[in-house]
Amino acid sequence: MIEVGQIYTHDFNFSQDEVNRFAEVTGDKNPVHLNADYAAKTMFKKPIMHGMLSASLFSKVFGTLFPGEGTIYLKQSLSFLKPMYVDVNYEAVFTVKEVLKDKNRAIVETLIKDKTSGIVCTSGEATVMNVDKIK
Amino acid sequence: MIEVGQIYTHDFNFSQDEVNRFAEVTGDKNPVHLNADYAAKTMFKKPIMHGMLSASLFSKVFGTLFPGEGTIYLKQSLSFLKPMYVDVNYEAVFTVKEVLKDKNRAIVETLIKDKTSGIVCTSGEATVMNVDKIK
Repeated sequence: MIEVGQIYTHDFNFSQDEVNRFAEVTGDKNPVHLNADYAAKTMFKKPIMHGMLSASLFSKVFGTLFPGEGTIYLKQSLSFLKPMYVDVNYEAVFTVKEVLKDKNRAIVETLIKDKTSGIVCTSGEATVMNVDKIK
Repeated sequence: MIEVGQIYTHDFNFSQDEVNRFAEVTGDKNPVHLNADYAAKTMFKKPIMHGMLSASLFSKVFGTLFPGEGTIYLKQSLSFLKPMYVDVNYEAVFTVKEVLKDKNRAIVETLIKDKTSGIVCTSGEATVMNVDKIK
C-alpha cells in the first residue's frame, strides 16, 4: 500500500557504454553525450548523460520496484537542473505527496541527487496509477 | 532562428527489438513492455512502448534537428494519454509557444500523434536553451 510521506530510494549509475547504447536506440546522437572532444569545448567539459536516460530511472522504479508491476505511468514533469555524468553515483528519491484513492492514483515527487554531494540534479513530479497497490 | 508559431514535425516508429534494447539499457524491464503473453492479460492487450522511449524523441529532435546541436534541455512535462505500440507510425509535433530572447530560451509544445488517426498519445511542454539559434 502506498501512503502519503512514504519515501523510496534507488541508487544507480550509468557507464559511457550505456549512454552510447541509449543514443543508438533512441536516435539521440547529440555529440555532447557521445564525443569527449566535442564535450570538452562546451560548458559541460565532458560528455553528459541524456536527461531522458536519467528520467528512465523513474519509469524503471515505478514499473518494477515501487509501487511495481501493474503501475501505469500517467504524467511526469522534469527539470534538468544540473548536468549528469557517467560513472557517477546517483540516488533517485521518491516521496509520495498525495494519494487519490478514488482514482487509484498517487502523486510522487521524483528527485535525482548526486549520491556524494546530495545536490539535486533532476527534479520533477509523477502521477501514477496502480490497479493493485494504491487502495 | 526560432520564432513563435514555428512548427517542426518528425515521423518515427519503434520496433519490438528497439523496445527490448531500451529496456536493457535503462533497466526498465516491466513485462508490459516486453512480454506479449503478459501484456495480453492487461488492458493494453499487447506490449506497449515505454513512455520515456517516446519522450526520448523530443530529446533527439531538440538536440540534433530542431533547434539542433548546442541545445540545452531545461524542462519537459509529459502526459502519457494513450498507450503507444511498436511498429505503429507516429508523428512528433513541435510548436514554438514562446521565445524568451533575453534568456536565450524557448518554450515549445511537444505532442506525439498517431500518424494515421491524428490522435494525441503524449502531450507536454519543453523549455530549451540554445546558445546559437535562439536570438
